[in-house]
Amino acid sequence: MKWARVVAGGRERTCVWREDDGLLVDAGGEAHRPDEVVWLPPVRPRQVVGLALNFREHAAELQLEAPEEPTLFLKPVSSLVGHRAPVVRPPGVEMMHYEVELAVVIGREARRVPAGRAYDYVRGYTIANDVTAREFIRNMYRPPVRAKGWDTFGPIGPFLVDRDDIPDPGDLELRAFVNGELCQRGRTSELIHDVPRLIEFVTSFMTLLPGDVILTGTPRGIRYVAPGDVMRLEIDGLGALENPVV
Amino acid sequence: MKWARVVAGGRERTCVWREDDGLLVDAGGEAHRPDEVVWLPPVRPRQVVGLALNFREHAAELQLEAPEEPTLFLKPVSSLVGHRAPVVRPPGVEMMHYEVELAVVIGREARRVPAGRAYDYVRGYTIANDVTAREFIRNMYRPPVRAKGWDTFGPIGPFLVDRDDIPDPGDLELRAFVNGELCQRGRTSELIHDVPRLIEFVTSFMTLLPGDVILTGTPRGIRYVAPGDVMRLEIDGLGALENPVV
Repeated sequence: MKWARVVAGGRERTCVWREDDGLLVDAGGEAHRPDEVVWLPPVRPRQVVGLALNFREHAAELQLEAPEEPTLFLKPVSSLVGHRAPVVRPPGVEMMHYEVELAVVIGREARRVPAGRAYDYVRGYTIANDVTAREFIRNMYRPPVRAKGWDTFGPIGPFLVDRDDIPDPGDLELRAFVNGELCQRGRTSELIHDVPRLIEFVTSFMTLLPGDVILTGTPRGIRYVAPGDVMRLEIDGLGALENPVV
Repeated sequence: MKWARVVAGGRERTCVWREDDGLLVDAGGEAHRPDEVVWLPPVRPRQVVGLALNFREHAAELQLEAPEEPTLFLKPVSSLVGHRAPVVRPPGVEMMHYEVELAVVIGREARRVPAGRAYDYVRGYTIANDVTAREFIRNMYRPPVRAKGWDTFGPIGPFLVDRDDIPDPGDLELRAFVNGELCQRGRTSELIHDVPRLIEFVTSFMTLLPGDVILTGTPRGIRYVAPGDVMRLEIDGLGALENPVV
């Protein structure tokens, strides 16, 4: 199932997406049109762990070697916004870009999880846009808080899609469009460190809690965006996450 | 007032420290002996923002120049533990050290706060031990998640002390003892970026929420600790935060 958190009629509601008519059905059975609700992030993580340089071709386009070990950063939860929310380009920033990423949502407390059992700890998946202001990155291996942490720099959604609806998260296509033009494309099969390995690595030293998110990294094809542009991110089976830049 | 969150009689309680007899009094008026409770972190932040190199002499001992702008990292909330909780030295880690820091606790949603009004947004203060495994730091300007993010690497407490009980947070002495020996000592008057400036800088790009914490940086005097050692951190007016290494 595809789950969404939305505001409709002034109230926050958890809805299920109904495939036959495309409406969002809340717990009381009321149906809402997707274009008449305000979309919230489908999850409320306490921690968002990001991956730097987890695609070789993306590392290459930045003229960097991909690191051997997963290279992590934390994205502040205050940066998260939902589908359709405007992403604000900060004053003075010119080098702001989208990054399409498969976001893995943790389902239960996860600590020292071996890769072979990693999927047991997954609640589901969604799409994340790891918006970045490249001005503030001086060392790609440890992206600083200010490059990726601005309010609205973390669009995520539209849906939380149940784990069992995605039989193979290791072979999904990711696509990013700017104003309808395909700019970024990759497959999760090209991830240097795949989903089970990432869960194993992160939980080897820190505990992940239900709702926490791992952003698995972005493929090559980043491009700067500016106010007026619309970013649309798609991943097979997860829908499309669209956000305007203002 | 000094506030504590503790577990006593199998239940979590918020207590006030009673100065005349040193007992912890819960909301129901029941008094608890501090050595008979389990101490929890006095706050439950969604985000913990840390400062790298905010004391010149600490930068000097690491043979680094102090950066001109505040240099931030995020400490995972999963690393937080309370007063007296054991801090676990991970297998293979040799270069683990304490860092005594004044922790500022935010009291209300804070966004684009000018330094002149920063204290209006402060709920209070506590002591933090920004435990670090130096093996995993390759670039001091952006401490990576794995250096500072291990479970138990974030002792904080023992109390949340109300803002108005600390008339001048810009002139407090910080001390760290290992097994009773004074190792680290500094004053918040030596902070390169003081508390109001840090609140202004962080909220210039990200929103802080009630309970969120800013770790203001550590003075010179770090030393490696090993299982069996006891770290005791003191700050004027905030008490003492003590944690054994195991």
